[in-house]
Parts: sequence; C-alpha cells; structure tokens
Amino acid sequence: MSAQPAVAAAPPTARFRPPAVPKVSVSGFWGDRVDAVADRTADILYERCVAAGMLDQIDPDRPVPALRIPFHVTDGFTASTVTTQMFWDSDLGKTIETAAYCLYRKPNPELEAKIDAVIAMFEKLQQEDGYCSSWYIRMQPGKRWTNLRDCHELYCAGHLIEGAVAYYQATGKRALLDVMIRYADHIDRTFGPKPGQKRGYCGHEEIELALVRLARVTGEPRYMDLAKFFIDERGRQPHYFDAEARARGADPADFHFKTYEYNQSHLPVREQDKVVGHAVRAMYLYSGMADIATEYGDPTLRTALDRLWDDLNAKRLYVTGGLGPSADNEGFTADYDLPNETAYAETCAAVGLVFWASRMLGMGPNRRYADVMERALYNGAISGLSLDGSLFFYENPLESRGGHNRWVWHRCPCCPPNIGRMVASIGSYMYGEAEGEAAVHVYGASHATLDIGGGRTVRLTQETNYPWEGAVRVTVDVDAPTRFALSLRIPGWCRKATLSVAGITVDLAAVTVDGYARIDREWRAGDTVDLALEMAVERIYAHPEVRADAGRVALQRGPLLYTLEGIDNPVALNRIRLPDGAGFTASFEPDLLGGVTTLAATAEADATAGWNGDLYRTERPARQAAPIKAVPYYAWDNRAPGEMLVWLRGG
Amino acid sequence: MSAQPAVAAAPPTARFRPPAVPKVSVSGFWGDRVDAVADRTADILYERCVAAGMLDQIDPDRPVPALRIPFHVTDGFTASTVTTQMFWDSDLGKTIETAAYCLYRKPNPELEAKIDAVIAMFEKLQQEDGYCSSWYIRMQPGKRWTNLRDCHELYCAGHLIEGAVAYYQATGKRALLDVMIRYADHIDRTFGPKPGQKRGYCGHEEIELALVRLARVTGEPRYMDLAKFFIDERGRQPHYFDAEARARGADPADFHFKTYEYNQSHLPVREQDKVVGHAVRAMYLYSGMADIATEYGDPTLRTALDRLWDDLNAKRLYVTGGLGPSADNEGFTADYDLPNETAYAETCAAVGLVFWASRMLGMGPNRRYADVMERALYNGAISGLSLDGSLFFYENPLESRGGHNRWVWHRCPCCPPNIGRMVASIGSYMYGEAEGEAAVHVYGASHATLDIGGGRTVRLTQETNYPWEGAVRVTVDVDAPTRFALSLRIPGWCRKATLSVAGITVDLAAVTVDGYARIDREWRAGDTVDLALEMAVERIYAHPEVRADAGRVALQRGPLLYTLEGIDNPVALNRIRLPDGAGFTASFEPDLLGGVTTLAATAEADATAGWNGDLYRTERPARQAAPIKAVPYYAWDNRAPGEMLVWLRGG
Repeated sequence: MSAQPAVAAAPPTARFRPPAVPKVSVSGFWGDRVDAVADRTADILYERCVAAGMLDQIDPDRPVPALRIPFHVTDGFTASTVTTQMFWDSDLGKTIETAAYCLYRKPNPELEAKIDAVIAMFEKLQQEDGYCSSWYIRMQPGKRWTNLRDCHELYCAGHLIEGAVAYYQATGKRALLDVMIRYADHIDRTFGPKPGQKRGYCGHEEIELALVRLARVTGEPRYMDLAKFFIDERGRQPHYFDAEARARGADPADFHFKTYEYNQSHLPVREQDKVVGHAVRAMYLYSGMADIATEYGDPTLRTALDRLWDDLNAKRLYVTGGLGPSADNEGFTADYDLPNETAYAETCAAVGLVFWASRMLGMGPNRRYADVMERALYNGAISGLSLDGSLFFYENPLESRGGHNRWVWHRCPCCPPNIGRMVASIGSYMYGEAEGEAAVHVYGASHATLDIGGGRTVRLTQETNYPWEGAVRVTVDVDAPTRFALSLRIPGWCRKATLSVAGITVDLAAVTVDGYARIDREWRAGDTVDLALEMAVERIYAHPEVRADAGRVALQRGPLLYTLEGIDNPVALNRIRLPDGAGFTASFEPDLLGGVTTLAATAEADATAGWNGDLYRTERPARQAAPIKAVPYYAWDNRAPGEMLVWLRGG
Repeated sequence: MSAQPAVAAAPPTARFRPPAVPKVSVSGFWGDRVDAVADRTADILYERCVAAGMLDQIDPDRPVPALRIPFHVTDGFTASTVTTQMFWDSDLGKTIETAAYCLYRKPNPELEAKIDAVIAMFEKLQQEDGYCSSWYIRMQPGKRWTNLRDCHELYCAGHLIEGAVAYYQATGKRALLDVMIRYADHIDRTFGPKPGQKRGYCGHEEIELALVRLARVTGEPRYMDLAKFFIDERGRQPHYFDAEARARGADPADFHFKTYEYNQSHLPVREQDKVVGHAVRAMYLYSGMADIATEYGDPTLRTALDRLWDDLNAKRLYVTGGLGPSADNEGFTADYDLPNETAYAETCAAVGLVFWASRMLGMGPNRRYADVMERALYNGAISGLSLDGSLFFYENPLESRGGHNRWVWHRCPCCPPNIGRMVASIGSYMYGEAEGEAAVHVYGASHATLDIGGGRTVRLTQETNYPWEGAVRVTVDVDAPTRFALSLRIPGWCRKATLSVAGITVDLAAVTVDGYARIDREWRAGDTVDLALEMAVERIYAHPEVRADAGRVALQRGPLLYTLEGIDNPVALNRIRLPDGAGFTASFEPDLLGGVTTLAATAEADATAGWNGDLYRTERPARQAAPIKAVPYYAWDNRAPGEMLVWLRGG
C-alpha cells in the first residue's frame, strides 16, 4: 500500500451530488441538533401548523375558513396570532419534509400517522386536472394562475414537491409523490414556450429547485426542462408580470415592492450581477440556477452565479452568514449596508444560502463556496432554532438591547420548518459524491455511505470533536481496494493545517485544489486520514465601508462566530473595548448551553464612576479592566433575555 | 464712579420675565436668522397652510371639506400630501404668531391683510357661547369636549391664544384677542372644580402656558388660575381620561399609546420624576409648570421641575439639545437611549425645551437652565429650518447616510410655524428683566430695552461676533444714573472667561452666582462691560451608558456643536477616526453657509485599499491620513444631499 497520494493537477470534472439524507448518520455537535429537531421540533411544527388553522384551509371535508380569522398559537408561555395565508401549503410542505428526515433518525409512528392524514387531505383536494393549491381551490376559486407575481402559487407547489420527495424517500410511501407528479404534469402543461402555454414564472422562486429534485427522484427529464424554462424566462421582456397585471385589470406600476428587483425578475438571470431584492427569493433562485448549471453544464449560468457570489461575499453578507439587512423588503439594500441591531437576516435566508452554496458544490468541491456554507450553517442559520428545538428566530440581528427574543410562531411561519428541514438533513450538506470522487465539505462526527459510481460504495467515518476541536480522523471502509479521490476541505479560517494518510504526512500544498486536499489513491478498508486544523481565536475586521462595524472587531474560533451576552458580562456591552493585546482562553464548558467552548479575556470598560449626573463632558471616560466571556453566536438567547453584541469596540 | 461692583452674596429673588419681542432688536447671527423668517418663512407658512386646505376647514363661508381629501403642498421641487387634521387651528395659530413677530422686523402689509382675513374667519366661526374650535364646529359637530385625550381641542385653543396675544402686541389689533378672550372665558366656565364643570385637561399640553400669556397681557387672574387648575388636575385619580373614554362608550384600555405616560398624565405632576412620553407634550407641560411655579411661587412645582430637569439632562438629551429619540411615541424611551441615525428629535421638541428652559429662568438667572437653552437654540432647534427659511426638518438625527433631507411641508405641520415663531421672537429669550435686575442669557449682537421696575428703563447694546467669537461688549444706556444688577451668563462650555466693567477687571469668582456674573452697581449711560469668553474647540464624550456614542467624540466650539458632511469630506464618514493629538484650525468662511466658522484637522481613515474583494479579514484595516472639515450642526443639509455624522470615532 502506497501512503503517498497521487497529486491532482486539475480539479475534478465530475458532477457532484449530495448524498441522500439516510446515507449519512451524524453524532456529536450535529447529532445533538438533529435530535432536538427529531425529538421536539418536528412534532411542534405539526402542532403549531394545526393550531394556526392550516388544516382547515386544505381539508376539503371541512368548511372553508373565513379570511382573516385570527388563530392563536401558543406554547403556554408566549403566543402568536396568525390569520389564513396563501402560502400555507408551503409551510405544510416543509413540515412534511422535516418529519420525513426525522423518521430516519428515530421512528415516530404518531407523527407519521398525522402526516399521512395531511397527505390524504391533499389527495382529496387535488383537482381532476392535477391542480393542487389549497388557496385557489378553496379560498379564491377561479383565480388560479392570475397573479404569479404576488401569490406564491408555484412556490407552494415547489415546497409540496420537496416534501413529497423527502417523504417518499423516508417512508417509501408514494401517495404525496403521486399527487405532486400529477401536479407537476399539470404545471408542465400550463407553462412553457408552446402556443397556449403561459410563459410565466413564480414571484417567489422555489419551484425551480423543487423540480430538479423531482426529476432526480423520478428520472423524468421534463421536470428538469421545466425548471430550466422557469429560469430562462425570468426577467425577459415583455415582462410577464406586467402583462399578467394588465390581464387582471391592474396597473403594473401598482406593485407593492415597486421594483422587480424584489423578485429578481428585473433582468434575465444571466445578465444579473448584483444580489438584490428579497433575500430568500434570491437564494432560492440562485440554488435553482446552480442545479441547472450543473445538470446542463451551462457555463453562462455559472458565470452569472459567480458574479452574484462575488457580489454577495464582497458587499452584503453578515459575518454570521446572515443576509438581507432590511425588514422593508426582507432583503438587500445598498453596498456594505449591514446594520447590526436592525439586521433582518431572516433565518430562511441563511438556510437559502446553505442551499445555494451546497448546489455550487455540484460543480466540484471548492472552498470558495463551502467556507460560506459552513459559516451560514454553524452561525446565522442554526441561530434561528433554540437549543431545545422549540422556539424560533425570524430575524437574526448581531446586536440586541435585550428585547429580541425567540418566539413560538410567526404570522409568516416560513422559518421554523425551513431550519427544521435543514438541520434534519444536515448529513447531505456534509458530503459530496461523484463518479470516482468523494468529498467532505463540513466536518462533524458522522458516518456516511457514498456512491462513487459503477456500483461502488464507500463508507466514511468521521471521528472528531468539531467544531470544538480541529482534529478530524476519517476512516475509509470499502468492500475491496478501490481507487477514488477523497477531497477534504481545508477551511479558509485555518492558518495551519496538517494532513496525514495512514499515518504519513502529506504535502498539503501539493494536493490542494480549490481549497480541498484531494487524495486520489487506491483506498483499502481501515485506511485513515488525519486532519489537524489549528483552531485559534481570530479577531475579524470588516471592510471599512461597513459603517456599522467601523472600529469594531468580531471573534471567531474555527467555524464559530462568537458573541457577548449580558448574562455572562456584567457591564453594558458597548462600554467594553477589546484591547489589542488581550489574549483569549478557550474552555469547553460541558454544562453550558448544551456544551460549548467559551472564550474569556480581560478587556476594558468605560467607567461610569465620576460622571456626577453629567451626560456629556470634555474628559474622555476612564477605563477599567473588565473580564469578558463570549459564547457561540448560534447559542445566544437560550437563557434569560438580555443584551447581545457581536461586534465589539476595538477595531 | 466706583468701578468695583458690589458682590452678590445671594441670587436675586425677583421674578424674571422675558422682554416682549419688540423690545429687542437683533443683528449679526440671529439677525440673519430672523431676516430669513421675516423675508421668506412667514409668507411660506401662510401659503402652505392655505395649500394644505386649512382655510377650507375654518372658513364658515366655504363648504365643509370632506375628511381625508388629499391636498398637495409643493414649492415646485418637492411636495407633501396632507389631509384634513383636527389640529389645524394650532398651525394657523402659530402661523399668526410668527407673522406677528415678523411685523416688528419689517412691515408686510400683504401678509398682514391675509392674516386679518384669517382672523375674520375665526371671528365668524366663533359660536354664541364663545366656543371656537373649527374641527368640532365644522368637521365633527356635537362632539366637543368628548375626547380631550386624543383630539387636541384645548391645545388648538392654546396656540390660537398665543397667536392672538402676539398679533395684538404687534399690531394693536384686538379682533383675535377678543375672540380668544371669549373662548378662554368659555373654557373657564366649562372646566374647573365646581359642580357641573369638567375636571379635565388636554391630552396635548399647551393651553396651560397660553393661559399664562393671556393672563399677563390682559391682567385677568382667572386665566392664570385656570392654567394652574389644568396643571393641578393632571394625572389625578380617578383618571379623567378613563372616565371620559367610558362616557364615549369606549374602553379606556384601547388607548393607542397604551400608557398615560405618553401625555404625562400617569401621575400627578408633582409626583413625576422621569421625563416620559411624547417629547413636545412633556416640554409644553413643564413650561406651563414653570410659569405657574414662578407666578405662584410654588416650591412643590419647582422641586418636581428640578427633578425632571435632572432626569432629562442626565439621561435623555442629545448633545444637540434635541430630545425624544423614538418615532413610535414621538418621544422618550429608556435611560441613555440616544440613537443617532434614527433619532426622532423633533424640531418642536427642541423648541419646547427652549420654552421650558426660558421659563425656568423666571425663577432667576441660572446657568443650569440657560446653558441648555443655548444648546438647543443654536443647534437642535434651528437645525429644523433651512438657512434661507424655506425648507424644514421634522426629525433632527445626528447621523445620516444621505437620505435625510429637508422638506417643503408635512402631514403634521407643527414644526415649521414652531421654529418660525421661536426664531422670530429670539430677542425675548436673550434677555431677562425684573425689579432692579437685568440679565443677558444668550449672547448675540442686539439692542434691548428692559423694564427694571419703578418706571425705570435700561437700554443694553450687545456688540459681538458671537457665536463665532467670544468677545462681548455690553454698553449700558440709562436716562440717569441707576442702580440695578446686571447678570451676564458665564457659559458652562467656557474654560476661561474674563470680565471688565468700564475697563476695570472684575474678580469673576467673587461675583458669580448660579453661573451668572451679577454686577450690582449704579450704572451710567455709556458704561461698558467687556466679557471675553475663551472659545476653544472641545472634544465632547458621552456617558458610557449611551451605547450609540461609545468610543466616539463630538466637536463643539463655543455654543455650537459641529458635524461632518459628505460634501466636505471625501471618505465615508464612519471610516474616519479622530486621533487624540489632532489639532483643530477654526476659520471663518464668509461665503460658506451664510458665513460660518469651520473646523479643520488631520484625522485618520481606515484604508479600503488592499481588501481584494474581501468583506471580512483577520488583519486590522490600515489607516491613512485624512483631512477633515466640520461645519456647525445647525447648517447641515443646506447644500447637496449627503452623509452627515456628529459622533466621530475616536472616543
């Protein structure tokens, strides 16, 4: 056995796909997160959807509910009041999808029976011609396909398709999948370039990536082509939404959000070079574009996607991986506009960024995308779910005076099932598989079974205490000696990494392609790869044009962004200044926040003594030593409400 | 003649009043401001009130306008759309008051004729019983006095009374004064402690201070007593607004603003110790309380006022003299909550603070109040009016990305006539007069004729280039040698002041009482007092609990707070950091912004070079030298729209 891997002169050319969810089982950090979803969130999602009246809307055996009747959703402590919404099919779709992934983790016959009953409602709801939107069948009959711009009709179809695919894969039950195949066929007849077909597309993207999943599970290329059609049509002139508005007797100029940048239809997608509009919509569109770029090998889409990726990463991404600073459009604003306290940074947008980044990896392992995926996963996405899996954030600010706290539900409950399904399917983001290729994108204790083509299967076991420690051992298991390339990401945050294969150190520089160490060799069962990633506390500075972060510093260790909470720090957080020389101690605290590594240092705080009732004075505030303690950002607001601050004074 | 003044062992005990507006004529800095109001603002106020449809509401000869019909107010460049409002009598009242003060400055027969016509409408509008609210006579007949909490009924009366008093004093015409005397008599019959009278008070304070003015001009003590009644009743239990709501068939809990702190009726006024609620309402209440404290020599009111003054000054006043940070309640929030970019800091609130501070001076000259009056006057109040007198700010933030610009009108046009009347009556805030006493509260080139009792008149001439220079010469003119005390404020911002009387230096420490140099002597015509106030550029630091200002510094020179504007500074303003050692050059620029002293220094700016498309990195931004130039805050946004920043990094 040769311990020296072959050197990769060029990146792999194969198309990578994520492994299906059941092929990866996670433990450690992500195991805890998945357990919280499987043990609590999945049931909670179902119960709160029911409490919100969603089944009243979709079940044809019930009376049609009145519009705007309030439902009160509560966990006994906090409450949220909601009314009937046109996008509820999507929330049920994501709830079904979350439940499906959780069934791999642990059986839940009660929940499965409830989901089966919901699916039976959709079966009964579906029209003769395959149409299956509960809103337009029951709430606004006769209006179908008249307002793609505003009414989430294809978006709802997309989420139900994703739920159907996941539930079929988890349970083998085809009922919802068959409903959605009929619905997709109906959509495929309704939309397209042929005479009599509509050349429209949805104001809220989602159907595109869902049709790709449907095509992959059914092997039906029509669905892939339809996804491509929706992407190709978007933003063309004459503008579909203009014509559609006029057909409704409306003035196209009366669009609430004023600009078609809001739904990324201001230009054909290949001409777009700025990340604009509603953040979740943008992420879902780019995810679909990336799938189509991979599936059709379309370089024009890839060029556009890389331009958009650069724009996002250079000018409009929070250090948490959150995105979309403004509540007004739930999305993007000016270059470098990244306010911390008022950050919208919707949980769904960070989840959407994970979707986009993971799909960019379909074109080959590349740290450029995977580093950002990791940043969003470990920080701005999972911050949206409480540690126990029962409470949620919609907005994920980077600063709070204490009034931003988790809630039980939302009038627009998109985030809870979105973070639920992402966490429950985490394994599929951690790995990639392709012909002759296996990739580890995200580290975490886990076991994966990957298909490397030609009927060959590779089993990888990751042993690691990541993200708390940077040592990762990957053990390979194959039925027989097998040649394939194993690509392991060397994270951009890591200043010093060492890699050994079967105990022999590898020259990392020689094997690194696009930020991945690519070990192309004949592997035997029991071969080990040891990766040691130095994990220092790093001070992060923002580009000087980010006005909110000027003169400030954030703390990161490994993939985790840190924050200060009032409960750990006795002085008002903005009084604290981190001196240049302050050294940090990282300590794992098993009893804190489910077990986290905290960072401690001695900083300075502006002293309030000696102010004598003055609000302003000409003498600079004195400074006093102040011990500080930081916790991982994702874990904030899981104790008593209080202040929170990511960007400390000290830049 | 003895050049040595008598030493004042105790502060004066006389009640001070401001001189009537016509008794002070201003030139220099304030002369320019008053000219802008007299030349432009006064006419503009009338025209825009007309354009907004106000006369349609009050003129009984016109058809009653529909509710919510939009009117478009424009100056040809920008426009504002308004609808009928219940508080329009108040805007007309303040417009009349502004016009009245301007008539002293320069005759304006066209405007006077228009105002006379408006007054004739009110005469015709007034009911047999004296009642005179256009809203309840024409828009909502039969509903009078049923919703004092929300509907500004007594507030409107108060502003019409103030307008009537001013117009009578300016023109000698009694028509509006007589209308308002009849209305005040009606109010006096309606409200009071006797059986059958209402024990109510207005949700928006104003009537209190207006009745004091009416009492002073008419000599009728009933109006003073009625003002005291409104103040004494406020906040008593059982709560009038609760009972009034129930009488309307409404639930008192359905109050839009939730808490009676909003209108300062949560507690009896003597028990209040925090400045809360709607900022303008608070300032007007405290102004009325101060008048009553002075007029009745009421120490319980003074104690409450001093508690409130301390609370405002220790925890909730912007460094500009602006106040009320929140748009939600147009008012106060938590201790030390002073956000800069989202500062509401309504122009009317700063004007209201000038009113309150000036009335605290009724109890004797005291720098504690006068310093704050000066701060608001020169900064956060006059910032609300463009230099040419034609455009307005409602909000006065301390930071802008370029999108906060002056407007032509507002749906709630309270600020334009409020800043108009304050500027046009500036002389009465500059001086104080009492039995045997004269005081100079605010410096500025001017000539004042003061009544010091016993039929004695003192004429003071201030020669100064204040606020640009700190040298002030006051020349006394008397008909015969007269003994009186002349009190001159030694501003708190001044580190070194010298004073000489008739050329002989005075020991300031020995004569200073409550921050005023009090020169009690026999004065002869031609006596001069020379005051030299050292006027250095000062760095101002905020209390460490003010999170928005942490690590930041503001610049002040003399009474003026400075700011940076994008037009003068080529780099994004938050990239700038002011180093400790940076020295400032102050230069008077006669052609800039009507003539201002600017401050220049060499600061540092975070460099954007070398970032290579990164948004975050672990290396601190490099710094490069950056020349900066600051202009007085009041003068910002009088050139091209752009960034503005008061609090620079560097604390």
